[in-house]
Amino acid sequence: MKIRVSVLGATGTVGQRFIQLLEGHPWFELAALVGSERSAGRTYAEATRWVLDAPMPSEVKGMTILPDDADLDTPLVFSALPSKTAGIIEQRLARAGHIVCSNASDHRMEPDVPLLIPEVNPEHLALIDVQRARRGWSGAIVTNPNCTATGPTMLLRPLHDRFGVTKLLLMSMQALSGAGYPGIPSYDAIDNVIPYIGGEEPKVETEPQKMLGVVRDGVIVPIACTISAHCNRVPVLEGHLECLSIGFAQRPELEEVVETLRSFRSLPQELNLPSAPAQPIIVRDEPDRPQPRRDREAGRGMSTTVGRIRPCSLLDYKLVCLSHNTIRGAAGGSLLNAELMYAQGLVKA
Amino acid sequence: MKIRVSVLGATGTVGQRFIQLLEGHPWFELAALVGSERSAGRTYAEATRWVLDAPMPSEVKGMTILPDDADLDTPLVFSALPSKTAGIIEQRLARAGHIVCSNASDHRMEPDVPLLIPEVNPEHLALIDVQRARRGWSGAIVTNPNCTATGPTMLLRPLHDRFGVTKLLLMSMQALSGAGYPGIPSYDAIDNVIPYIGGEEPKVETEPQKMLGVVRDGVIVPIACTISAHCNRVPVLEGHLECLSIGFAQRPELEEVVETLRSFRSLPQELNLPSAPAQPIIVRDEPDRPQPRRDREAGRGMSTTVGRIRPCSLLDYKLVCLSHNTIRGAAGGSLLNAELMYAQGLVKA
Amino acid sequence: MKIRVSVLGATGTVGQRFIQLLEGHPWFELAALVGSERSAGRTYAEATRWVLDAPMPSEVKGMTILPDDADLDTPLVFSALPSKTAGIIEQRLARAGHIVCSNASDHRMEPDVPLLIPEVNPEHLALIDVQRARRGWSGAIVTNPNCTATGPTMLLRPLHDRFGVTKLLLMSMQALSGAGYPGIPSYDAIDNVIPYIGGEEPKVETEPQKMLGVVRDGVIVPIACTISAHCNRVPVLEGHLECLSIGFAQRPELEEVVETLRSFRSLPQELNLPSAPAQPIIVRDEPDRPQPRRDREAGRGMSTTVGRIRPCSLLDYKLVCLSHNTIRGAAGGSLLNAELMYAQGLVKA
Amino acid sequence: MKIRVSVLGATGTVGQRFIQLLEGHPWFELAALVGSERSAGRTYAEATRWVLDAPMPSEVKGMTILPDDADLDTPLVFSALPSKTAGIIEQRLARAGHIVCSNASDHRMEPDVPLLIPEVNPEHLALIDVQRARRGWSGAIVTNPNCTATGPTMLLRPLHDRFGVTKLLLMSMQALSGAGYPGIPSYDAIDNVIPYIGGEEPKVETEPQKMLGVVRDGVIVPIACTISAHCNRVPVLEGHLECLSIGFAQRPELEEVVETLRSFRSLPQELNLPSAPAQPIIVRDEPDRPQPRRDREAGRGMSTTVGRIRPCSLLDYKLVCLSHNTIRGAAGGSLLNAELMYAQGLVKA
Repeated sequence: MKIRVSVLGATGTVGQRFIQLLEGHPWFELAALVGSERSAGRTYAEATRWVLDAPMPSEVKGMTILPDDADLDTPLVFSALPSKTAGIIEQRLARAGHIVCSNASDHRMEPDVPLLIPEVNPEHLALIDVQRARRGWSGAIVTNPNCTATGPTMLLRPLHDRFGVTKLLLMSMQALSGAGYPGIPSYDAIDNVIPYIGGEEPKVETEPQKMLGVVRDGVIVPIACTISAHCNRVPVLEGHLECLSIGFAQRPELEEVVETLRSFRSLPQELNLPSAPAQPIIVRDEPDRPQPRRDREAGRGMSTTVGRIRPCSLLDYKLVCLSHNTIRGAAGGSLLNAELMYAQGLVKA
Repeated sequence: MKIRVSVLGATGTVGQRFIQLLEGHPWFELAALVGSERSAGRTYAEATRWVLDAPMPSEVKGMTILPDDADLDTPLVFSALPSKTAGIIEQRLARAGHIVCSNASDHRMEPDVPLLIPEVNPEHLALIDVQRARRGWSGAIVTNPNCTATGPTMLLRPLHDRFGVTKLLLMSMQALSGAGYPGIPSYDAIDNVIPYIGGEEPKVETEPQKMLGVVRDGVIVPIACTISAHCNRVPVLEGHLECLSIGFAQRPELEEVVETLRSFRSLPQELNLPSAPAQPIIVRDEPDRPQPRRDREAGRGMSTTVGRIRPCSLLDYKLVCLSHNTIRGAAGGSLLNAELMYAQGLVKA
Repeated sequence: MKIRVSVLGATGTVGQRFIQLLEGHPWFELAALVGSERSAGRTYAEATRWVLDAPMPSEVKGMTILPDDADLDTPLVFSALPSKTAGIIEQRLARAGHIVCSNASDHRMEPDVPLLIPEVNPEHLALIDVQRARRGWSGAIVTNPNCTATGPTMLLRPLHDRFGVTKLLLMSMQALSGAGYPGIPSYDAIDNVIPYIGGEEPKVETEPQKMLGVVRDGVIVPIACTISAHCNRVPVLEGHLECLSIGFAQRPELEEVVETLRSFRSLPQELNLPSAPAQPIIVRDEPDRPQPRRDREAGRGMSTTVGRIRPCSLLDYKLVCLSHNTIRGAAGGSLLNAELMYAQGLVKA
Repeated sequence: MKIRVSVLGATGTVGQRFIQLLEGHPWFELAALVGSERSAGRTYAEATRWVLDAPMPSEVKGMTILPDDADLDTPLVFSALPSKTAGIIEQRLARAGHIVCSNASDHRMEPDVPLLIPEVNPEHLALIDVQRARRGWSGAIVTNPNCTATGPTMLLRPLHDRFGVTKLLLMSMQALSGAGYPGIPSYDAIDNVIPYIGGEEPKVETEPQKMLGVVRDGVIVPIACTISAHCNRVPVLEGHLECLSIGFAQRPELEEVVETLRSFRSLPQELNLPSAPAQPIIVRDEPDRPQPRRDREAGRGMSTTVGRIRPCSLLDYKLVCLSHNTIRGAAGGSLLNAELMYAQGLVKA
């Protein structure tokens, strides 16, 4: 018996990724699609401008889209709602007993809401009890981080555990898909870079500290790490590439950095979660990798690929990392969160 | 009477830019084109795959390309030779009495060779006497910096003079034209970023200190500034965009940074050199500028455009800057060097 | 004393081109900007997302945008309104005595409205008397053709006059700017071609016959030429490239085709109209030209460039042509129409 | 027991596709890699700049590349050699008893060499006996067509069989990968189209008639169909998109065209060959499909996708078709040829 799931914001690009990733899922079964007023009542095929390269799964074509305020009968709900819209709808569903795995930013930084990457901070799920106690909910909201924060936080986990990370300077070259659809006009994208993404830098500068923090007495104590981010949009379809300079409490040797990243495995790998990549972090030795087009699909879009690990004259080390922004950084990240919760008995049929 | 000039490496992309910029120049007149063995003896139109968007100037089409070892009768020589090839040829010409304005990296870091941006360090031309004395040359070699170092060094000049710059972390998103022609295969460039440019980071991390240094007793004392660079190639035709985080000896106010950059004028503007832009640095207030395609032509490709000046949580301030890599960062930079030397009586007919 | 002009739809991409091309115009002076309800009352700088590469002319920044229903005091009005919106507004202005030069498709195929390319059918301006008599207007509407029809029609004029053109098969590779702004989402454009442009093929298949037709007794008799079009959108910023196969009533020699195109000059060249290119048609001999990026600016965007003229095994000859879609194919085409009308005394201060 | 196979030209882009497609093949086993002088003796990983997005299969990394003149002990040889180089090497191997499945153009139009698309003309394999008899070979050469001819010929097969195809006007928008690697410089590809591909149009205009011809007395009688091609290179990574106008001996109804294409199945489908797509031709109903990025992977790159079937005012019908140029149009096409030959007993262990 599979767990029945709903997808909120099902017609958008992240919604489409959820549907794509749920196709043939061993534990979850897509039972309901929820859309905006404009889409509700129409079939998914009619209401959706499908933009992904792989075709729309045939089983969703005829499903009727439910309105935002529908009562859902699925224990698990994935939210691909845009920020600001997400807040109230997700709260209503959590109050009504649903586990809501949200990709929206609305609740990420609330103290009783887990901001979760299963390899990074699975113990933060302990906050669910706090959340329920405090809010009187029978369900819960669990969020995944901003797509640009995801890759770096994955890397920082094992590095911080061994050497203490105190400083991070990060410069991103983000994919067009991160802006949704229609997103960036092509007239702005071709032969160009846009050195600004509204609201992105503050997220990247604050989410990692929460995720890397420890839970003490029901409260997350964030790590003390200063982060500064420069975010840019480049003409790439998928995959956020980021240049990082990292400062440590104790400067490791270069080989230790490489080995720490390369050997990192975590709970999702132990539990063998369906969407968990065999290697959460792949270290490449070629001088010119990772590259978005050639490395974004690593681990079916769930691995973070790292390269060019070398000393930094200002901080300690610098490197390049790549993470698939609409898989690991959005729908795939939420899905892995749900898998972890299911494996830990937090989602029940 | 115009000064007659030659262009070495005339058929390549930087050579093409020299020819384009010399068309109708008020002081200089293109008299000789020099090429590789393969090109020598052919007309420029026959030997050249012209790749610039504006058409080949008609007056060069019929000019016969001279071989590398030809004796030139022009007092001024522009070198668009590739690094490693450039060294010996440029030395031979300087020894023979020519002023060689070189875009190649071979001699840039030699202690008696000016590495010159006329707005930044015009007083470094004093090294020419040292160079001549030491090498017994009647001519001289003057170089312009790496294209990626050019924009940041321009910005650092007025900032360093007022506040002392001690740290610079820099991430570049560099144009395809910087790799020459044929350069990067299109199959690598579309929907992709290449996070590596061979030999680039060391140049960017060392050239600015020399340029910002002072000449004492015929020796350049470089400034004490630690620079760390991440260099990337993005699918943009022209214009290097760079994210900078800057640390100061004395932290200025934000408005002081803006005002210092915006009001910067230097010797080329005073002398009204033909290729000098009215504003060496343009500060834009929009949140999403500069953009390569929309700002690279500012000041006919000779201005550096800056935007997004804001505090940095790790160093003091961060910003984005853009400089046209094949104009200011290559042929236009060399040309302005020659104009300064002419204005100062160092080039004679 | 310059003629005062207004621009309707001033904030859109074609409106921006009008403003750019009117900067420093020797005969016309921009006096009023008209926009949608959303823009009216704001300054042009506030209301406009300026997308062209060259910066917004400073003199328009502070101009206040007038509403659609404003009374205008300019004898000449340029319309960059979208189709369907354009119809009623343009009629009101023509009735009120304005000469309206429209880029919209609404009135193009009406029998008493000139569909004008000054090099192709200047004698069609005779329809203005018919239009005024029939509609009781003191002003008039004159239109320019669809951007994709423009280049081919330019070529067909001299060819039809000498050899009779009876068949045209045309495949376009059209620039993104033709879809306006925001237009095509970047996620659809990169690494892709969209083989469909809504409503485009019927325009391309009918407008040329009208333009190439003769006026008899106040009526245009279109030429008998069968046209079939395949329209595609490619990842190019500006410049529509088109492959043509042409069938003639009398098959000319290849050299005659080349010579006929190359030597074509027409009334705008004789009158030396300010926006008229010296050569309406440029024939290139290289095997791989025209190319959008390298040839679209020919004649300041007003020339049509042709290449690869060769026999076609199905019809008689095939070739490639390129025309700048937002200059000659839109704002520049309208402007040249106005210049012709002014030169012929149809526009008065 | 799998058939052992070699790949000639193994390090190039088509060679890489062969290796990729042979990974895990149920019938064939990669036993030898052959390369140029420069590569011979090195391991495949050392000698190859792997450019495909999916990673290099690990089993080939350590294989040593053999020189061009090596004796091979594999009954089947795939040739990804460039044209002109291919000719002599392929002949030598065929003489020595190998079945050579070649992607090169050298032997395609020779009267005793099958130019094969298994769905189109499997009966042309009868030429092998003629070839052997005439040349005294124990092996044979079988070729697959030019990538741009492949999709249209697939479509023409069922249409010609029912209605007789007499005329074809074809305009291609071809992917960058078709030019090999490094191929087109990125500086030529971004924001541009190149309306010329050397040697391509003659191939497209002659290969289909041979493939659609019948074998009579050991001789192929080509069909009488006039083809005219316009070939262009667009900034797309993979997938050739082509606009076709088709004239018939007997004009069918539109529905007949659609139905004929949609229902087409052929011998590879009957034989269930491993690389045969379930549907050789996919007809899409959306107005804006096929698109290269979204449809090229259909049938794992082996299906031809068709859309926009509509009347043509000049010929009878027009449509758009898409075929993956380096899978079906190159390595995958050759591989399917080999599978057909194996299924028919022409390849023996």
